[in-house]
Amino acid sequence: MTPSAPTPAYRRLSVEERRSQLLDAALGLFAHRTPEDISLDDVAEAAGVSRPLVYRYFPGGKQQLYEAALRSAAEELQNCFDEPRDGPLLARLARALDRYLTFVDQHDTGFSALLQGGSVVETSRTTAIVDGVRRAAAEHILSHLDVADPGLHLRMTVRVWITTVEAASLIWLDEGKQPPMPDLRDWLVDQFAAALAVTAARDSQTAALAQKLADDL
Amino acid sequence: MTPSAPTPAYRRLSVEERRSQLLDAALGLFAHRTPEDISLDDVAEAAGVSRPLVYRYFPGGKQQLYEAALRSAAEELQNCFDEPRDGPLLARLARALDRYLTFVDQHDTGFSALLQGGSVVETSRTTAIVDGVRRAAAEHILSHLDVADPGLHLRMTVRVWITTVEAASLIWLDEGKQPPMPDLRDWLVDQFAAALAVTAARDSQTAALAQKLADDL
Repeated sequence: MTPSAPTPAYRRLSVEERRSQLLDAALGLFAHRTPEDISLDDVAEAAGVSRPLVYRYFPGGKQQLYEAALRSAAEELQNCFDEPRDGPLLARLARALDRYLTFVDQHDTGFSALLQGGSVVETSRTTAIVDGVRRAAAEHILSHLDVADPGLHLRMTVRVWITTVEAASLIWLDEGKQPPMPDLRDWLVDQFAAALAVTAARDSQTAALAQKLADDL
Repeated sequence: MTPSAPTPAYRRLSVEERRSQLLDAALGLFAHRTPEDISLDDVAEAAGVSRPLVYRYFPGGKQQLYEAALRSAAEELQNCFDEPRDGPLLARLARALDRYLTFVDQHDTGFSALLQGGSVVETSRTTAIVDGVRRAAAEHILSHLDVADPGLHLRMTVRVWITTVEAASLIWLDEGKQPPMPDLRDWLVDQFAAALAVTAARDSQTAALAQKLADDL
């Protein structure tokens, strides 16, 4: 025998590597089909492993695999929000939105099934994972805005804008990904500034922020 | 025997009356407790009838009762949108919002459980009922705006604003019903005008509408 690199088929994966290989396969499937349409056989086939092996890693079956895949997607989504804290605020928001919309584009059907609810594998735990992403998004925005103690009005404005982004993403998928992604991004950034301006008219904390945003440009 | 009006306890209800009595009792319970916390026994007790009678009307048990109650609540919600087609457009929107927010106030916990998802009795059918209410709201708004053939931008703006209203209602409940309801209503009306203005900057159909709204005041 001559020494050679082992072929992928013979490489022994660590538990973590195997787990993440299965999650990647599952995410790939969940991205473009609803959870109802996917069986563990499909996941095994996509990962090129046996069905018993999928069960060994996810003894809870599809529900457990779905939640793990969802957690992994949620992490990926939260990474979209990481943005250096310099430069104009609205430009930072635009860059984070670019990453977020790229994620939506790549995971279209799965993203839409998850957020629109009604999935049979949806539970209070999956809802909690999605809510965690929303909370993280709100915290990121408030931290970039440099607000340590956001009042009622500002909190509501930021949280509502996050659902605006979600709803617009779903409608965007529904409308065959129209308008083009950069237009949707700019529209969402402008909606953020406009929503803040409406709140600024009745809340001094938000008014100070809106002024900062305007000076920033 | 002297003739007298039958006491309520002895009055024989028609099938429709009985059904609506049970639905009212169920809605009353679902309004302030999550579906998980309610049993058919509770519904029977609230309606002052026997448990077998509840099953006779809703042989599908709690799931069927919940869906029927939800349908009845959806109808009630859609009635909130009925508004005469005269007077300034934003004033009409404000009046519809007043009725909607009163509904949210009255059905707080049930409303929130339903929209936040994760309920064990939630199914694709309950999701479809809620989506039907959203669609009806969008159609009402577009019809008041007198737009027969709304383009992509206007559709997205109106649909996104409807989720703004939903999200704001949930956050409002979450924040102990603060700010006061009239403030929330005015904020939502202003957000509508602001969202329309953002879209008007890139879409001529919406620009014409925004102009109409401004002339209207």
